[in-house]
Amino acid sequence: MSRIAVINGPNLNMLGSREPGIYGSGSLDDIQRALKDRFQGRTELSFHQSNSEGELVSLVQGLVGAADGILLNAGAYTHTSVAIRDALLAVDIPFVEVHLSNVHAREEFRHSSLMADVAVGVVAGFGPSSYELGLEGLLGYLSQHKIP
Amino acid sequence: MSRIAVINGPNLNMLGSREPGIYGSGSLDDIQRALKDRFQGRTELSFHQSNSEGELVSLVQGLVGAADGILLNAGAYTHTSVAIRDALLAVDIPFVEVHLSNVHAREEFRHSSLMADVAVGVVAGFGPSSYELGLEGLLGYLSQHKIP
Amino acid sequence: MSRIAVINGPNLNMLGSREPGIYGSGSLDDIQRALKDRFQGRTELSFHQSNSEGELVSLVQGLVGAADGILLNAGAYTHTSVAIRDALLAVDIPFVEVHLSNVHAREEFRHSSLMADVAVGVVAGFGPSSYELGLEGLLGYLSQHKIP
Amino acid sequence: MSRIAVINGPNLNMLGSREPGIYGSGSLDDIQRALKDRFQGRTELSFHQSNSEGELVSLVQGLVGAADGILLNAGAYTHTSVAIRDALLAVDIPFVEVHLSNVHAREEFRHSSLMADVAVGVVAGFGPSSYELGLEGLLGYLSQHKIP
Amino acid sequence: MSRIAVINGPNLNMLGSREPGIYGSGSLDDIQRALKDRFQGRTELSFHQSNSEGELVSLVQGLVGAADGILLNAGAYTHTSVAIRDALLAVDIPFVEVHLSNVHAREEFRHSSLMADVAVGVVAGFGPSSYELGLEGLLGYLSQHKIP
Amino acid sequence: MSRIAVINGPNLNMLGSREPGIYGSGSLDDIQRALKDRFQGRTELSFHQSNSEGELVSLVQGLVGAADGILLNAGAYTHTSVAIRDALLAVDIPFVEVHLSNVHAREEFRHSSLMADVAVGVVAGFGPSSYELGLEGLLGYLSQHKIP
Amino acid sequence: MSRIAVINGPNLNMLGSREPGIYGSGSLDDIQRALKDRFQGRTELSFHQSNSEGELVSLVQGLVGAADGILLNAGAYTHTSVAIRDALLAVDIPFVEVHLSNVHAREEFRHSSLMADVAVGVVAGFGPSSYELGLEGLLGYLSQHKIP
Amino acid sequence: MSRIAVINGPNLNMLGSREPGIYGSGSLDDIQRALKDRFQGRTELSFHQSNSEGELVSLVQGLVGAADGILLNAGAYTHTSVAIRDALLAVDIPFVEVHLSNVHAREEFRHSSLMADVAVGVVAGFGPSSYELGLEGLLGYLSQHKIP
Amino acid sequence: MSRIAVINGPNLNMLGSREPGIYGSGSLDDIQRALKDRFQGRTELSFHQSNSEGELVSLVQGLVGAADGILLNAGAYTHTSVAIRDALLAVDIPFVEVHLSNVHAREEFRHSSLMADVAVGVVAGFGPSSYELGLEGLLGYLSQHKIP
Amino acid sequence: MSRIAVINGPNLNMLGSREPGIYGSGSLDDIQRALKDRFQGRTELSFHQSNSEGELVSLVQGLVGAADGILLNAGAYTHTSVAIRDALLAVDIPFVEVHLSNVHAREEFRHSSLMADVAVGVVAGFGPSSYELGLEGLLGYLSQHKIP
Amino acid sequence: MSRIAVINGPNLNMLGSREPGIYGSGSLDDIQRALKDRFQGRTELSFHQSNSEGELVSLVQGLVGAADGILLNAGAYTHTSVAIRDALLAVDIPFVEVHLSNVHAREEFRHSSLMADVAVGVVAGFGPSSYELGLEGLLGYLSQHKIP
Amino acid sequence: MSRIAVINGPNLNMLGSREPGIYGSGSLDDIQRALKDRFQGRTELSFHQSNSEGELVSLVQGLVGAADGILLNAGAYTHTSVAIRDALLAVDIPFVEVHLSNVHAREEFRHSSLMADVAVGVVAGFGPSSYELGLEGLLGYLSQHKIP
Repeated sequence: MSRIAVINGPNLNMLGSREPGIYGSGSLDDIQRALKDRFQGRTELSFHQSNSEGELVSLVQGLVGAADGILLNAGAYTHTSVAIRDALLAVDIPFVEVHLSNVHAREEFRHSSLMADVAVGVVAGFGPSSYELGLEGLLGYLSQHKIP
Repeated sequence: MSRIAVINGPNLNMLGSREPGIYGSGSLDDIQRALKDRFQGRTELSFHQSNSEGELVSLVQGLVGAADGILLNAGAYTHTSVAIRDALLAVDIPFVEVHLSNVHAREEFRHSSLMADVAVGVVAGFGPSSYELGLEGLLGYLSQHKIP
Repeated sequence: MSRIAVINGPNLNMLGSREPGIYGSGSLDDIQRALKDRFQGRTELSFHQSNSEGELVSLVQGLVGAADGILLNAGAYTHTSVAIRDALLAVDIPFVEVHLSNVHAREEFRHSSLMADVAVGVVAGFGPSSYELGLEGLLGYLSQHKIP
Repeated sequence: MSRIAVINGPNLNMLGSREPGIYGSGSLDDIQRALKDRFQGRTELSFHQSNSEGELVSLVQGLVGAADGILLNAGAYTHTSVAIRDALLAVDIPFVEVHLSNVHAREEFRHSSLMADVAVGVVAGFGPSSYELGLEGLLGYLSQHKIP
Repeated sequence: MSRIAVINGPNLNMLGSREPGIYGSGSLDDIQRALKDRFQGRTELSFHQSNSEGELVSLVQGLVGAADGILLNAGAYTHTSVAIRDALLAVDIPFVEVHLSNVHAREEFRHSSLMADVAVGVVAGFGPSSYELGLEGLLGYLSQHKIP
Repeated sequence: MSRIAVINGPNLNMLGSREPGIYGSGSLDDIQRALKDRFQGRTELSFHQSNSEGELVSLVQGLVGAADGILLNAGAYTHTSVAIRDALLAVDIPFVEVHLSNVHAREEFRHSSLMADVAVGVVAGFGPSSYELGLEGLLGYLSQHKIP
Repeated sequence: MSRIAVINGPNLNMLGSREPGIYGSGSLDDIQRALKDRFQGRTELSFHQSNSEGELVSLVQGLVGAADGILLNAGAYTHTSVAIRDALLAVDIPFVEVHLSNVHAREEFRHSSLMADVAVGVVAGFGPSSYELGLEGLLGYLSQHKIP
Repeated sequence: MSRIAVINGPNLNMLGSREPGIYGSGSLDDIQRALKDRFQGRTELSFHQSNSEGELVSLVQGLVGAADGILLNAGAYTHTSVAIRDALLAVDIPFVEVHLSNVHAREEFRHSSLMADVAVGVVAGFGPSSYELGLEGLLGYLSQHKIP
Repeated sequence: MSRIAVINGPNLNMLGSREPGIYGSGSLDDIQRALKDRFQGRTELSFHQSNSEGELVSLVQGLVGAADGILLNAGAYTHTSVAIRDALLAVDIPFVEVHLSNVHAREEFRHSSLMADVAVGVVAGFGPSSYELGLEGLLGYLSQHKIP
Repeated sequence: MSRIAVINGPNLNMLGSREPGIYGSGSLDDIQRALKDRFQGRTELSFHQSNSEGELVSLVQGLVGAADGILLNAGAYTHTSVAIRDALLAVDIPFVEVHLSNVHAREEFRHSSLMADVAVGVVAGFGPSSYELGLEGLLGYLSQHKIP
Repeated sequence: MSRIAVINGPNLNMLGSREPGIYGSGSLDDIQRALKDRFQGRTELSFHQSNSEGELVSLVQGLVGAADGILLNAGAYTHTSVAIRDALLAVDIPFVEVHLSNVHAREEFRHSSLMADVAVGVVAGFGPSSYELGLEGLLGYLSQHKIP
Repeated sequence: MSRIAVINGPNLNMLGSREPGIYGSGSLDDIQRALKDRFQGRTELSFHQSNSEGELVSLVQGLVGAADGILLNAGAYTHTSVAIRDALLAVDIPFVEVHLSNVHAREEFRHSSLMADVAVGVVAGFGPSSYELGLEGLLGYLSQHKIP
């Protein structure tokens, strides 16, 4: 059974109270519980969140040998962090980029991602469902490319 | 039961033979069959494809009163057609943008979309699964916002 | 008596139902009827609409010898179509560019026109009246330059 | 009966002698007389011209309570004056932007307007007729929105 | 003997009457006759023209198994159509891009091509001779790379 | 006791009636009275306003030997006037740039200032209080650098 | 009595020894002592400094229910951190952006701020006094909008 | 004998006291006296200076029939005034653009001129001598093209 | 019989050994021999090559009265030399620009040419055949425009 | 004997396993051992690595009085961190920027450095040897400028 | 008596025959003779011309100790040569940049100069007189700054 | 023993007298002597300098079979010469790019190199030591990749 690390970047620990008009009223715990429920028995999930770019880099590095795939919502760092991109390239673990909101409908600086071009794929705009769809896609990808 | 129109833009009728390194070896028929199988009983699907921007505009217009959601792979027109964007705004039917390939990993001119900011969400990079994930996301959206 | 072709581009057949906050609640028929009423006896009007760039190109080409002026609302193609520009240059018939909405107050990509620099003039922002004002201007131009 | 201020910016007092190939051989007086003749009884017109940006700002400010609409040819200041834009916003009187020449067919710096996005509409390229068409459009707008 | 499809884009059916200062006074028929005469017995030629981007896409798609090379004058679509580029990539048939006029000496937007980087080569500026030179070049290329 | 000239640019004479959502409902007189009250006995204030760039240039020039500091709200000219910048450099009197509104939260063209880099400092966004804070800052600066 | 968190970003702990030509010779302690002295009895101040973007994000998050306003000198992160911007939006606490130096007179990359457009206001260039002026402005804002 | 109007823009009345490191210590009077001395008997000189863009426009307009050439130092307006450019085009009097300082060695925004492309020629960087050289050049031009 | 100078720029003397994957394995001598063979009796050819921009300028200058047309492969100088462009304009001899490789498929800086807009036409991408096609095109042009 | 701090940024702890095609198969330990061996007795080396921007800022700050020079490979932060640049300016210790790979041959966003312009010099592309060459250069610089 | 080197760049040896509409019909010899006549006894002139950037660099280098000033028309190299700029900086001899034509009225790439910012001044647009005016200016400069 | 060609571009023959503040007071001979001394017995050095781009191209071409590596300081041509880049690619000899000064701390146009992306590596900012460090790096590279 594959092991998937779900990594959340800055401010995602604020979900529920943070700009609910954009991000919805569910908390990060709600999202994680929903993922566990839906994917129980299909994959082994671990959950991580950090507000620090450096911690996220270390976190990704620590996944070598410990995860087969990464479900990543890098939040604001999506648009500014070459370091997280480099960590993802360094560990060479397939990852999917997810966003709760439709980033294309927001500020100009949220339209570009420093990671998307090295991701398996991208899912954005479906609220908490973005995580479920992204994980679905990641598992599909892994079933075809990885875990023998 | 909701009605979903699956609309494919230019060259998607060539799937299977077209640049298989990028688009995979499955045909558009394969994708459509898989969608029907997976979503049978959950939604009513109709399938459309055209190489013509104008026909796609007319096609979208024709969905007023006939579809509750659109699953759209506008292909090359994603990056060049203000007309299809306008048609989508005109009919005001929720739509999800999907791409087989990870457009962010390809030519610069494929990185921007003239439709994404008015879409519910975007799914890209999962091959044929992009359609399934996108439709999953669209149905989720509709169940929360639309069909009473 | 001069002959004027009124040409409408993509989605203008949706007028009335399409984003009424921007485009108003009148239909294209309403506009055309108003034009006929106002200009009856002063010019001979023909009406055309197409969602297809190629059809619009052919339509313009077909006006050689059949029209003395063109009243053009190319809609979304205003901003993307070199082909329609080329057709207008090819037939060498004076034309006026009109827009229902004030394009300068909308998305960035609606601020530039691929046709305006070869038009007689431009009228934008007056709703259906843009057509009447544009036609008035076109007839004035023709009376000074063309039909002997 | 509505009151309309016709405001002309720098160098428009030179009409007739100024670059007749571009601006025609009629004087500003000719234009104003034609407006008065055509709109007699339909609206009350006042005419203003200044070469000074600051005077134009003051002029616009002075229209509060004295005009119901503005017909504005800001000339060169169209492309450079944030101050006149601010004055127009400050007085909150509907205005129409007009140009004698087709600005899109001239130097690059004449293609953008600092005022068009807050205007009711724009008319350009019809020579002196631009004023008549613009005033027609402005009166139409006022009849639907303003003077009870 | 190789089979070559000569494909002409929008407004090329207007040759002869269209801006003769730029495009010359010969018709498309003249060009095609000259090609047939010169290349008789060396290659099998088919001729196509359409004003519609979508039809050109379909036309290119239809050449699979029916043509060994394409001589393409995509006209205005050269500068705007990702869809035709995609069709050319999808069918994977060698093609040469030709232009009657010297596009580098014209408007800025004609200086870039969305197809040239995936063409065998480009010929521009020689009037009708551009077709003959381009076909000569295409046949030379095919004789070295393709038809055994 | 230092002498401070408070200079206001175009449309600031309209305060109170001008876009109250952005600029508040207080008049320029209100602001000036508040300044006088608060700084009475600490500095000698003179007040100036003009809608004309040229007058503002002359006004600044006239301060040589008559003012020890300038509190400047150049309004729209902040973003367009090299001439006022040059005047400020010519007289070499320390000045502080103030804005009622938060210019960074408004139109793109209000984000850059042609004067800020040669100012002592900038205060923006506090409504009428911007003047008081700016003057406080200017007096602090002068007490450390200038008046012996 | 309102509670204000004074937050300082990277390298502000070096004040006094760091580039004194630009930042002055006072330490951060000096600034904080001066704030305490001046605002004693008017507001309750807490002081924070971190070199880490992630810690600053967490720090801002921790202010929910603990502060009524934020006085923020984000230092270098002003120009690069979308994450801190997002944290400020997430907690929805009014904040004022301050800078010791006149950022407009320094390197190009210091001219833009990722936070200023969502701040109450900005104060820059007055050395340590920027903090006092900014806090004055923030308290003024709060007295009008917040603490009942 | 030709008549030349020497026109000076904003802040040139401050010469001598204004940034002497850049502009030298001579006054505008000194420059004008030197011009009169050197060109006495060769041309009839009139001198003008204004800080106001609008007055400069009017001033240029007033030269029709009164001057055969213009020696223009538009100062800061060189880089911002389309209105003065338009006035120069309107009166169609040959003019030479002069600058005291070497504008190419100063701020970026001083590198471009809105007038230079319609001038006879440009002289910059020679201090007061720029006027003498420019006038020499203008008289040479006139002797070959104009006054019979 | 017309006289054609075939001019080759920098590094074309390295053909055959230089990056054969891009430029092929034929030498410049091979190309020149092939040209002589094919065009024997139809035109008089002279061959030139230099690595020096200045020599190429002098070379072009020396063709006045000695050549009726130029077949030019300026190599790297195509993208950087205003001087060769000026020489070509100075001698006013019709020339055709040729490239062995498809420059549009290479580095960004090879996509623009400083000469193409003043050439008769351009041929690129056909390897050594580019010269033959280009010469064919040049002779065709000359037969219609030049040598009586 | 001088003291040199060797500082490594994010992901450099992954050397050896990280993208060996780009970064080689040696570990950071290998590099550090080689430095110690080669420079033994010539300088006193300390080694530091962190994935966190904030920690790197603090680390640099802590070198005041503890290091005479810095050998810096800031990794991904080279291209994004104004904060580290500021720390380097704050401590005013000479530093050399090194990179294992040739950054100019990689992604566009790796071509610019926010630190290089305030470094003594830059060494890039020599793999682990970049460190040795950079340290050699730094010691040479110090021997001429610093430690008496 | 000062010694002035007059240096001419590429294609200036073609004067008289080269594009006479732009450059006039006088030859370079004519210009040089006129300079000698006018400045006889006031300065010692030497004349140089080369089509080669490298020769111009060497030529400038050779002036150390041999010239007190340079009158430079670098022709096309004005816009492209960093090497000549560097040579001018290396020899540290005051120079004046001259152009026959008004470069601002020509192609975009002729609007910027790589040398002007380190020149004493610039003279452009007066035909052969540009040289005389430039030399006049250079001698004036030298009389105030150099030769004792 | 490997053979290394040390190639110097324009103005490097002026070292010692040329802008000593930037380039130091040592001559090119000094640099070359230091290189010979340090690398005696480790490699065979040849020295070349030219001010001419074309000669540098020929010089590089002449190294085929005569050098195993190139130490290149292309001076100003670093930023402008596609021709030297092409020559380096044509001969396919590994080269290292060196600069005396820190190019990143100088004019904008010195920040980019047309050669760096095809170099082994780059060394800049260490004065004459840049050559020694660069050569060290080049020899290290060759010992691992080339000379058996």
